[in-house]
Amino acid sequence: MLLKVRRLYIEAGGKPIVLLNKEDADDIGVRALGRVKIVTTEGRELTSVVNVTYRAVERGIIGVYDEVASKLKLEDGSLVDVRLSEPPRSIYFVREKLKGKKLTYPEIYEIVRDVVDGRLTEVEISAFVTALQTFGLDLDEATSLSKAMVEVGETLDLGDVFVVDKHSIGGVPGDKTSLLAVPTIAASGLTIPKTSSRAITSAAGTADRAEVFMPVNLDLEEIKSVVKKTGGCLVWGGALHLSPADDIFVQVEYPLAIDPLLLPSIMSKKKAVNAKILVIDIPTGRGTKVKTIGEANALAKDFIELGRRLGIQTSCAITYGEQPIGYAVGPALEAKEALETLMGSNKALDLLNKAANVAGALFQMAGIGDFNTALQLIRSSKSEKKLRDIIAAQGGNPDIKPEDIPIGDRTYDVKAESDGMALWIDNGRLIEVARAAGAPKDKGAGILLNKKIGDRVERGDILFTIYAESSIKLQTAIELIEERSFIGVGKSMDMLIQFVHEVPVYGRRFELER
Amino acid sequence: MLLKVRRLYIEAGGKPIVLLNKEDADDIGVRALGRVKIVTTEGRELTSVVNVTYRAVERGIIGVYDEVASKLKLEDGSLVDVRLSEPPRSIYFVREKLKGKKLTYPEIYEIVRDVVDGRLTEVEISAFVTALQTFGLDLDEATSLSKAMVEVGETLDLGDVFVVDKHSIGGVPGDKTSLLAVPTIAASGLTIPKTSSRAITSAAGTADRAEVFMPVNLDLEEIKSVVKKTGGCLVWGGALHLSPADDIFVQVEYPLAIDPLLLPSIMSKKKAVNAKILVIDIPTGRGTKVKTIGEANALAKDFIELGRRLGIQTSCAITYGEQPIGYAVGPALEAKEALETLMGSNKALDLLNKAANVAGALFQMAGIGDFNTALQLIRSSKSEKKLRDIIAAQGGNPDIKPEDIPIGDRTYDVKAESDGMALWIDNGRLIEVARAAGAPKDKGAGILLNKKIGDRVERGDILFTIYAESSIKLQTAIELIEERSFIGVGKSMDMLIQFVHEVPVYGRRFELER
Repeated sequence: MLLKVRRLYIEAGGKPIVLLNKEDADDIGVRALGRVKIVTTEGRELTSVVNVTYRAVERGIIGVYDEVASKLKLEDGSLVDVRLSEPPRSIYFVREKLKGKKLTYPEIYEIVRDVVDGRLTEVEISAFVTALQTFGLDLDEATSLSKAMVEVGETLDLGDVFVVDKHSIGGVPGDKTSLLAVPTIAASGLTIPKTSSRAITSAAGTADRAEVFMPVNLDLEEIKSVVKKTGGCLVWGGALHLSPADDIFVQVEYPLAIDPLLLPSIMSKKKAVNAKILVIDIPTGRGTKVKTIGEANALAKDFIELGRRLGIQTSCAITYGEQPIGYAVGPALEAKEALETLMGSNKALDLLNKAANVAGALFQMAGIGDFNTALQLIRSSKSEKKLRDIIAAQGGNPDIKPEDIPIGDRTYDVKAESDGMALWIDNGRLIEVARAAGAPKDKGAGILLNKKIGDRVERGDILFTIYAESSIKLQTAIELIEERSFIGVGKSMDMLIQFVHEVPVYGRRFELER
Repeated sequence: MLLKVRRLYIEAGGKPIVLLNKEDADDIGVRALGRVKIVTTEGRELTSVVNVTYRAVERGIIGVYDEVASKLKLEDGSLVDVRLSEPPRSIYFVREKLKGKKLTYPEIYEIVRDVVDGRLTEVEISAFVTALQTFGLDLDEATSLSKAMVEVGETLDLGDVFVVDKHSIGGVPGDKTSLLAVPTIAASGLTIPKTSSRAITSAAGTADRAEVFMPVNLDLEEIKSVVKKTGGCLVWGGALHLSPADDIFVQVEYPLAIDPLLLPSIMSKKKAVNAKILVIDIPTGRGTKVKTIGEANALAKDFIELGRRLGIQTSCAITYGEQPIGYAVGPALEAKEALETLMGSNKALDLLNKAANVAGALFQMAGIGDFNTALQLIRSSKSEKKLRDIIAAQGGNPDIKPEDIPIGDRTYDVKAESDGMALWIDNGRLIEVARAAGAPKDKGAGILLNKKIGDRVERGDILFTIYAESSIKLQTAIELIEERSFIGVGKSMDMLIQFVHEVPVYGRRFELER
């Protein structure tokens, strides 16, 4: 059917979508969310997903969203031939997965490619991800997915350089380990092109923290130049298209709070930067993604085996995750704490220990040292110097001092109401409060802990301080704390924490960050 | 955040969607497919799903689709307050189902209500339906779903009248049973307000067939009046909102070719018309939804038990489905065959038999007769008279003769190339050919079989005739037949049908119709 183009001047999130009048759609024989093949007079072709309208476009008109207009070079009034298109072959593979079948590499490749090219609808992608979640995926499928996700994405080509990498599966607030580990690893002479995510549901992502010091939104060429100069970088990976399929899958996983693609998602991005050795940090315990050491071990084995299949020598660090790392939560507070620690502060010993463990594990795999080597690089200010080199190369101020970092000037101290000991910290609630105070968007907002688990507390002691950039947000955070705090103080012989009368069923929080 | 409304004048398929500039979305803290609460200056409120754009609307502007504009009575330039909305509680229940948990009635009710109110996105609905498919749903959940789907929909209230109903799960081409069974049941004095679907992937739905005689797009008040006058009706159920949730679920099930809601979908619609006794037709065999008698029995037991829980006495007729019912496929050809059979033709004996079996089963349950009672009503022209009463009451021509029904005037005979016997009919291929010829949209298009399974065939005999309203469509249908026909003729001792060299993996067709 020959139709006249009307541009809608709306983006459809990268998906090729057109809008047809209901009558035309009926004549073509296509339903809403069905597909049509569009052919221009110049012979350009595109398969698009159909939205149907009774009034927004009349008969004879095809409304085109920006993606279709730009791919087919269409203007208002262009004529296009529109006909029913067969569903893509990949939909049959999705349906097979829905029956619990194991998929082969060519099948998975076709699904992943069609996801990236917009040929599968949200309904179909959601069904695929849900089926992966409910049936699980085995290591063969995880390998296929990792490879396919690399295949359809960009890669960082650093030539013959031996590349190493580190990654945390996340879930612990205040985890600024990369800000210390990356310069330490680079200071050893290894090459670590570290890409990170921004916070989605947390109070800060590594990219948010690094952005306090320097621009992080670099393209692949810029990254190459920084890494060649310094051996490392700390950049945002979100716009690099290292794994564009994952960027789409995560849009589905996020509302569903499921993450069946955890392994392929991480490993494909590491493969895309051509990492040869890799340490994965698995924070474990209440309030993290992995609750028990048994689970952590099983996950570690899968990472190691998947790494082997992809040619990445992988080891995993199972780390304690039941309270924040260090004392600071929120981009600027964390950046400051990281810099102070690199400059010799001994306050955040857990942070120092974790960074040295992660870097040390890579040193052992590379045969150039261990935990003590890493600690020595930090203690001798070599890590600090390397961080400043990276800051300079990425366009930040290499001479920045901790006190130069702007922190929110609206503050509120929360004090202990009784004597005892800090018994527990609720990570999820802590994140809620930090976000209410403005983190991660307000970089100076967040929480500075004064007590951590095991610390002696006397009535009137400051437990923590809330920082905000606006009074309204500070007030919102205070209200949350008045409703329920996130630090539990008690005497360890007082076994009863509280009686529960109403069960808060819907209070669960999910973290999903890559 | 206060934003100024810009109407987009596009429908979003019933869903409340707004379009935000990326920067505004970031400030509000909402991602694409997240939700915002919109409050008008008059205090009207609506939770909407967010689409994000970089250019289509500027900062400070909120683009609203028709659904939101009409619910909130918005015009261009209206000011609205837009803030982050918590996800609906039902999303937690969807997530529980993704973990394989069994859901309770209140949980299912909340999901179903939010589906209908547009508070769950396509991604979430797709995940829910996929999880129902992969984990299965037990009878408690099927009961809850049926009840919830009735609860959120319209109902047909016929007062104290004792209502009966029949339903086929579908899958057989040419199944015009309802055109005979409904007037027969009404002729017995029982009340049967029959709602049917139009074809989605088949060559004709019962509503398409009935529409050859009379208007079928009646509202609930008109249906009441027709049923009060005649004891029956034959109308399209698609716009009655008897089960609006199902209308949405099916949009997801269709592309995925899954149908986990088969039982609740059917039973909710029967409950919505307050049926007290019900016969379900389960066509069984190759080329239908149910392949074996064992499967059909299991499904029948579920229907009967679900009916018991809903207060609907249900029995199931497992029927032969490996070839079309009667000889005609396509709306007008089928309507003609049905009328001829009611007027005394003995050609389509399988059709007559099936209609009498379905009606007879209801008579037995109601204690007013059996198969023979039904046959007698048909033979004595009482069913024909009742059909004409219904046609008159619905606004059609009650004096219509079979030869008045317009049939496509472009025809093509397909002849046997060898002697033997008709051994098999490929229902799926037959439907493809009928649709290529124009059915169901061209009411006069379709196929008239001359031979059915078991019939003796001599070389040169007409196997079937293709009817079309346009030469182009006729030609397309002929090309399909030249590529591969749908009737297999052979000698029954010739055991080899054909050697297969290439396996057509992706040729499966799915039928999903309600």
